[in-house]
Amino acid sequence: MLKPEIPRGTRDFPPDVVLKRKYIFKIIEEVFQLFGYKPLETPAMENLSTLTGKYGEENDRLIFKILNSGDYLAGIKENFAQIDIHNSEYWSAKLSPLLCEKALRFDLTVPFARYVAQYKNEINFPFKRYQIQPVWRADKPQKSRYREFYQCDVDVIGSKSLLYEFEMLQIIDEVFNRLKLTDLTIKLNNRKILMGIAEVVGELDRFSVLTTVIDKLEKIGIEGVNQELKERTIPQSTIEKLQKFLDFSGENSDKINFLKQQFVSSAIGLEGINEIEKIYEYINTIGLRSAKVEFDISLARGLDYYTATIFEAKVNNLPGGGVGSICGGGRYDNLTGIFGLPDVSGVGFSFGADRLYDVLLTLNLFPASIQTSTKILLVNFGKEEEKHSLQYISKLRAQGINAEIYPEAIKIKKQMEYANKNKIPYVLLAGSTEIAEGKYTFKNMETGEQKKLTLEEIIETLCRK
Amino acid sequence: MLKPEIPRGTRDFPPDVVLKRKYIFKIIEEVFQLFGYKPLETPAMENLSTLTGKYGEENDRLIFKILNSGDYLAGIKENFAQIDIHNSEYWSAKLSPLLCEKALRFDLTVPFARYVAQYKNEINFPFKRYQIQPVWRADKPQKSRYREFYQCDVDVIGSKSLLYEFEMLQIIDEVFNRLKLTDLTIKLNNRKILMGIAEVVGELDRFSVLTTVIDKLEKIGIEGVNQELKERTIPQSTIEKLQKFLDFSGENSDKINFLKQQFVSSAIGLEGINEIEKIYEYINTIGLRSAKVEFDISLARGLDYYTATIFEAKVNNLPGGGVGSICGGGRYDNLTGIFGLPDVSGVGFSFGADRLYDVLLTLNLFPASIQTSTKILLVNFGKEEEKHSLQYISKLRAQGINAEIYPEAIKIKKQMEYANKNKIPYVLLAGSTEIAEGKYTFKNMETGEQKKLTLEEIIETLCRK
Repeated sequence: MLKPEIPRGTRDFPPDVVLKRKYIFKIIEEVFQLFGYKPLETPAMENLSTLTGKYGEENDRLIFKILNSGDYLAGIKENFAQIDIHNSEYWSAKLSPLLCEKALRFDLTVPFARYVAQYKNEINFPFKRYQIQPVWRADKPQKSRYREFYQCDVDVIGSKSLLYEFEMLQIIDEVFNRLKLTDLTIKLNNRKILMGIAEVVGELDRFSVLTTVIDKLEKIGIEGVNQELKERTIPQSTIEKLQKFLDFSGENSDKINFLKQQFVSSAIGLEGINEIEKIYEYINTIGLRSAKVEFDISLARGLDYYTATIFEAKVNNLPGGGVGSICGGGRYDNLTGIFGLPDVSGVGFSFGADRLYDVLLTLNLFPASIQTSTKILLVNFGKEEEKHSLQYISKLRAQGINAEIYPEAIKIKKQMEYANKNKIPYVLLAGSTEIAEGKYTFKNMETGEQKKLTLEEIIETLCRK
Repeated sequence: MLKPEIPRGTRDFPPDVVLKRKYIFKIIEEVFQLFGYKPLETPAMENLSTLTGKYGEENDRLIFKILNSGDYLAGIKENFAQIDIHNSEYWSAKLSPLLCEKALRFDLTVPFARYVAQYKNEINFPFKRYQIQPVWRADKPQKSRYREFYQCDVDVIGSKSLLYEFEMLQIIDEVFNRLKLTDLTIKLNNRKILMGIAEVVGELDRFSVLTTVIDKLEKIGIEGVNQELKERTIPQSTIEKLQKFLDFSGENSDKINFLKQQFVSSAIGLEGINEIEKIYEYINTIGLRSAKVEFDISLARGLDYYTATIFEAKVNNLPGGGVGSICGGGRYDNLTGIFGLPDVSGVGFSFGADRLYDVLLTLNLFPASIQTSTKILLVNFGKEEEKHSLQYISKLRAQGINAEIYPEAIKIKKQMEYANKNKIPYVLLAGSTEIAEGKYTFKNMETGEQKKLTLEEIIETLCRK
């Protein structure tokens, strides 16, 4: 016997979970469309060469590769004699591009960049697209980290307008509010400001090290940051110059004024400040529903392709502090360059569906009505009664009411159990007496209450719910 | 430069195509839920052992396998010395289960069977589930055959009730009707009837050969069938006995009566006829919206796991005859047996989304309103006007109207072009005069007609659409 199981790090989603996930995806998709974004779908498989080298060396190892079909060994004939199986690790890495032409997408950003470059002549820029699809990563499976998970990306590419930065904040604000997550903070920064700081402290060459360490400020504190900078051989004099940036606290406007003074000799830094100011102008004149937008110079975002505005959002009122950021993104100036389409600027971000799911579950924010898609079960009383019930159920369905009939005339108690276990909220009993009367027993499974109603009354009750 | 392209046989779906596909999926999903079916999702990757040996030898080769992560060659150390690269085809087949533990799902049926066996203690039977997800097959790419495509499966497992057979026909009928495909025929047969015929002609042992050939009756005609039976060494006497079955034409009831006479000595054949009769009883008393249900003894369905009722549906009014069946399915008695859960009967079928898409496109049945998700573009007249437009757009969006604003104050003609190319049906122009007046130019991009309206009037117009 074959043991029924699935690969580590993957998940089956049973109906009640799918219904909750669909609730999240539906709201995200509605808001994306509300702001004029259009759906795009790309294949699960990309050419391996499209993906390799885009995510850093560490991540390249986490790309799931697909074995070539048919006689795949024919492709390594020339290498075969050289393979030293005692050094299998080396050879595993070396041979995989020869054994595999295709791989599963690792995120939605690289396929999007590939798509934009491929169809550049057909696309009308600015191109506003969203994409909600699974991605795959050969990460070590652990709590809340899966090998297959959905990303919900939204991007606009082909315009440098800062209006789109504001639009991204509006989208985050709207999605969180529709999910009843009204207590949220969006952290905002700009890579140009980080470059300004690196320039001012004299370490523009080591911008990447600097930002990686500064990114940890919230997590490891200022002492920790200084310690790590030292370990990474940043000179003591530089670390000292950095302190006033790391120490500075105050209102968003205080931070902006402070940095303006510091950046008198950094054009790039001033550019970043200028962009931040313009975004705040939108926020202040148009407003957001409930998001607080906090300018945070320690926000760095890991990904190398961001070149200007960066942001991430989190929920504030989670018991125990919660799951960190739920979405994040930023502006990139050359995402499509590698595919032969240079200097096309875009901005976008990604929601992690799993994190949103966990947060809504923790805060008990899933509506009760999505527990099940079926509204009513018709009990089966036998051959004759079934004929009538099938007429009734057709009428219910014609009104858009999701309904089912039990397939056999087993004991009523068992049929009621089926409704209960499947969380079907109502049951209709139409035995011979009820049929003759034209009034049917209509039971609320949650309260246990039951009434005799006509079919029209039942339809009315269910349509009101 | 890396050439932007995707693997052969895979597809990008641009926004206008995704919107059309979503239209199809939404209707299918609504109808599945209307009949009480609940969504299930399983991972894209299954263990290779779960998939191997379920689809026949030919198909096993078409399963996409995923290379093990990390040092995958370590797993073949013991075999390495024996590998004869001059016989690479043999070794490719032999090594793939050692190089790959995981594979992409080939259909939704085997993962469903695996799921049911795995969660048998938590599932409340009868279990009514639907599943709409992509599957992958390493088929030779050709017209209308892709390596990644969506299946829309619906099944109920854990009941032998023939009510469910009727329900499947109702679901097909409802989906087709909602898609405005009202001229459809469902072909209906029962594998027990085919077994009865095999028994009567004395070839029960070669049931599989017989049905495979009979299945081609419509395609190659009776002469062709007889020829092929001969080639497959079916004795001439048997072929002669078969003629009366193949020749017989008439109403459904004539066919039933004829077979009843033929099956006096075939218990299994009579059982099949009895089931067909009961299904027709449902059809005749409850009715279907527009489907014609044709009892067709030449319908066999390829898949070996079907054991009783089988059916498929097609659209009749396609120019040139069209694409063949759009959906098909049947009853199986032991799908989960291989996973240690024997004798659980189920019935279900699958829609091919691509075929439906092609049919709706051919018959021009996609609603015009789904060409784009965005309803209106606000022209950008510059910094000051933009502030007002952003207020207006917030009001439009608050009413659920999908709206976008052009990000920069470029020439109006160019902004109109953007609306045109993106098929945005309406444009709102709010220059300084309009703002002062409180009435805005509202242009219908299809007719070219433009009016001056208040924001409330514009909202009213758009909500009516």
